[in-house]
Amino acid sequence: MQAVPVTLLASAWIMRPDDANFAGNVHGGIILKMIEEAGAIISTRHCNSQDGEPCVAALARVERTDFLSPVCIGEVANVSAEITYTSRHSVEVQVNVMSENILTGAKKVTNKATLWYVPLSLKNVNKVVEVPPIQYARKEQEEEGKKRYEEQKLDRLETKQRNGDVIFPIINPEPHTVGYSQSSLIHLVGPSDCTLLGFVHGGVTMKLMDEVAGIVAARHCKTNIVTASVDAINFHEKIKKGSVITISGRMTFTSNKSMEIEVFVDADPFVDEARERYRAVSAFFTYVSLSKEGKPLPVPQLLTETEDEKRRFEEGKGRYLQTKAKRQAQLQQAALQ
Amino acid sequence: MQAVPVTLLASAWIMRPDDANFAGNVHGGIILKMIEEAGAIISTRHCNSQDGEPCVAALARVERTDFLSPVCIGEVANVSAEITYTSRHSVEVQVNVMSENILTGAKKVTNKATLWYVPLSLKNVNKVVEVPPIQYARKEQEEEGKKRYEEQKLDRLETKQRNGDVIFPIINPEPHTVGYSQSSLIHLVGPSDCTLLGFVHGGVTMKLMDEVAGIVAARHCKTNIVTASVDAINFHEKIKKGSVITISGRMTFTSNKSMEIEVFVDADPFVDEARERYRAVSAFFTYVSLSKEGKPLPVPQLLTETEDEKRRFEEGKGRYLQTKAKRQAQLQQAALQ
Amino acid sequence: MQAVPVTLLASAWIMRPDDANFAGNVHGGIILKMIEEAGAIISTRHCNSQDGEPCVAALARVERTDFLSPVCIGEVANVSAEITYTSRHSVEVQVNVMSENILTGAKKVTNKATLWYVPLSLKNVNKVVEVPPIQYARKEQEEEGKKRYEEQKLDRLETKQRNGDVIFPIINPEPHTVGYSQSSLIHLVGPSDCTLLGFVHGGVTMKLMDEVAGIVAARHCKTNIVTASVDAINFHEKIKKGSVITISGRMTFTSNKSMEIEVFVDADPFVDEARERYRAVSAFFTYVSLSKEGKPLPVPQLLTETEDEKRRFEEGKGRYLQTKAKRQAQLQQAALQ
Repeated sequence: MQAVPVTLLASAWIMRPDDANFAGNVHGGIILKMIEEAGAIISTRHCNSQDGEPCVAALARVERTDFLSPVCIGEVANVSAEITYTSRHSVEVQVNVMSENILTGAKKVTNKATLWYVPLSLKNVNKVVEVPPIQYARKEQEEEGKKRYEEQKLDRLETKQRNGDVIFPIINPEPHTVGYSQSSLIHLVGPSDCTLLGFVHGGVTMKLMDEVAGIVAARHCKTNIVTASVDAINFHEKIKKGSVITISGRMTFTSNKSMEIEVFVDADPFVDEARERYRAVSAFFTYVSLSKEGKPLPVPQLLTETEDEKRRFEEGKGRYLQTKAKRQAQLQQAALQ
Repeated sequence: MQAVPVTLLASAWIMRPDDANFAGNVHGGIILKMIEEAGAIISTRHCNSQDGEPCVAALARVERTDFLSPVCIGEVANVSAEITYTSRHSVEVQVNVMSENILTGAKKVTNKATLWYVPLSLKNVNKVVEVPPIQYARKEQEEEGKKRYEEQKLDRLETKQRNGDVIFPIINPEPHTVGYSQSSLIHLVGPSDCTLLGFVHGGVTMKLMDEVAGIVAARHCKTNIVTASVDAINFHEKIKKGSVITISGRMTFTSNKSMEIEVFVDADPFVDEARERYRAVSAFFTYVSLSKEGKPLPVPQLLTETEDEKRRFEEGKGRYLQTKAKRQAQLQQAALQ
Repeated sequence: MQAVPVTLLASAWIMRPDDANFAGNVHGGIILKMIEEAGAIISTRHCNSQDGEPCVAALARVERTDFLSPVCIGEVANVSAEITYTSRHSVEVQVNVMSENILTGAKKVTNKATLWYVPLSLKNVNKVVEVPPIQYARKEQEEEGKKRYEEQKLDRLETKQRNGDVIFPIINPEPHTVGYSQSSLIHLVGPSDCTLLGFVHGGVTMKLMDEVAGIVAARHCKTNIVTASVDAINFHEKIKKGSVITISGRMTFTSNKSMEIEVFVDADPFVDEARERYRAVSAFFTYVSLSKEGKPLPVPQLLTETEDEKRRFEEGKGRYLQTKAKRQAQLQQAALQ
């Protein structure tokens, strides 16, 4: 049997009713979970491809990801993953998702995501093992990869931890205020949520984060909502089996047609550690509201009340304008080429 | 980061197609499972909040629970849990479920459940550890809790074990007899069904019990049926990972608009113990039949044949009349206040 | 409590939206998984019924299985299993599935499957323990069982391993060619996929195989498709927790109204073994295309291009004609009786 290249992977999944909202659009969280699973498989396979210490690749970071078109129940999601760069201790994976309508054969690009994994020893979870280098087709690929590696490393160090922020329940909030739509859910981490190392899969965490963000968005605008994008997420802290995780979301910003929701993941490792409750992950999700025909609808303006809410709104506006400017620059560059 | 009070918990879940029957009503078993998960989390968190032995809270008892209004696919179930009493070795948790229609914002109380947990040591599952006492806002709260504690303790001792009762298959039963609708299912206990201690979550057992009771009810009246209430359930015996459980249900009583179904859970721990098959749990579920518009429908009368069936029907009638009288007394009391 | 005969088992399951395709027909893979679970439970129970070494029954082989009528969402699948033969080291189980429309009470036979299990010691997974003999009602039952045992033993030795065959991606394939519909999916084996011994349940593997075969069939004919039959499957190689499995399918043959799809399961045990990627299972699935009213539709002819494809098409035709002849002989025999 011929060797299969370890640096490439392709998989097809049928989307089921439980994966979708009431309008039949597959939740962004389901897609993030598929993306992460493909990334984890390909990087674990690569890191074990030479006679080194057995290891499991753990998700360290997901770059900003856009959801380019919605996927529907009954469609096939084609997931392909490729290792695009390796440093001494990390692996960069590019995962693309393409939706396919089986009845018409029509295909659409849904996502292009970039993920970073770090291989942890199966025998000692605190030890990062060495990554076998990949072969590049062209010299520039390695240089560009190195540049991306340095950039994300810097960004990971800079991450605002926002550790002081907790979401408190509000009594009788007014419609369209932050307190009105804020939501949280609590999940007991079971064995099927975890890797062989006994820590939660990054994809499981992202799926729950999207679930909370979706409830916040739907409570705010009371229509059919879909995930439009997720900001870069850093996974600084592992979450152990048996922990209880609280995922909380609050709206930070609205433009005419989009909502930004900040999501926090806090872990309580109470059962077998002396450790305190800690902030494991935080991220910004952007949602849009869609009509039955799939057209974007206007979104009610978020009413900010406290000084903190007003500050967060301005920060969200900053991120929104920055992303918008970046996209326009890309369009102009594309037009010039 | 500010401390979160360990005695309070709130969580929001979106209801999915797999959670519901063909009329779109979420199965009572799904709601019981959510309730139990919230109770297990809050009591485990509380019991580990001081520097004692690490432990996991195991469900000992659920008080009688009414399903006040059906929940539908796409709605958000808001689960809130609060510790309302602690004895030396047990925790009483009050869990409320409120359904929320995200499109209209309408909210309805669905359940108010009371559960009792016992903390078992993580190192020695046969050892019950001590529960840290909670603070009461008023002195009377502690006294009322103590009264409830004594009552349930008495009831747990009194539990008729009904261990002699086994459900045998009937050949060619007549419609509306007990044998016609009786049903059973068999489940292999896997890792995702179990707590950190390797025993089945009480909520998983209740979900399967409701599944069998629902098949019995649907076979009897051939319409859309929903869970109306569950009698107090005592969990005397733990069920270990790798066991096979047989859940059997038979109809015991019908009123004009309700059906009572008795459900047994038997465990076969054959794989790693010398132990015999044993009765782990038993309970009564009450179902009603609903029209497409959600109105209660008349239920065909149960045809009893044997002496045992007639005796069980009379016992069921007793429970039905007792519950009815209790509810009327509550209504009168409420009217007087 | 009266002893329950260990050689008989009956279970009822409600079919859910996630179990079905967009036309509401339950996937064959879901039914295969239910069948295998029932077989595993009854044979594990039987093999532990005497005071021998604790053991878990592992699936060794499934005989050719026909799907006689489709099952729909909301119907109850009644699964009954019976041990029909035991050799010194293996157990033959007959599993029947009957679908039941709860609203009308109508029942239809869906499947009659025969499975072979081998009990592996819980302490030493490489040791096959002895099977307690069953009692036969008539002497001929034992003789017929022995004959089936010898036949399947021979067939298991003969199994063409097809180990040289790998499915490669094709760039821009023409519609109705083999490359156009071939598909694969990749799955990380988690704890809920595995038995107590830490190896994948046979039913989990068959469910994933049916999932890939269904995508191949739907891509080829772009209509609603259902599993019509599965050829005998031998499970030569166990798959360990933590492995990554790649399931690949390609169309081998089309008749006027059916499609034959060959499915391969390859396992990568990279994490904790020095072992190479290996072929764990392979099988042929037959699918038909159904109209909205459930009538069989004509299927587009498969376009074969390479010599290998033409050879496989002829082999598939051979299997098709053999099955057809066998069925006609059975019908004639039935008419004579």
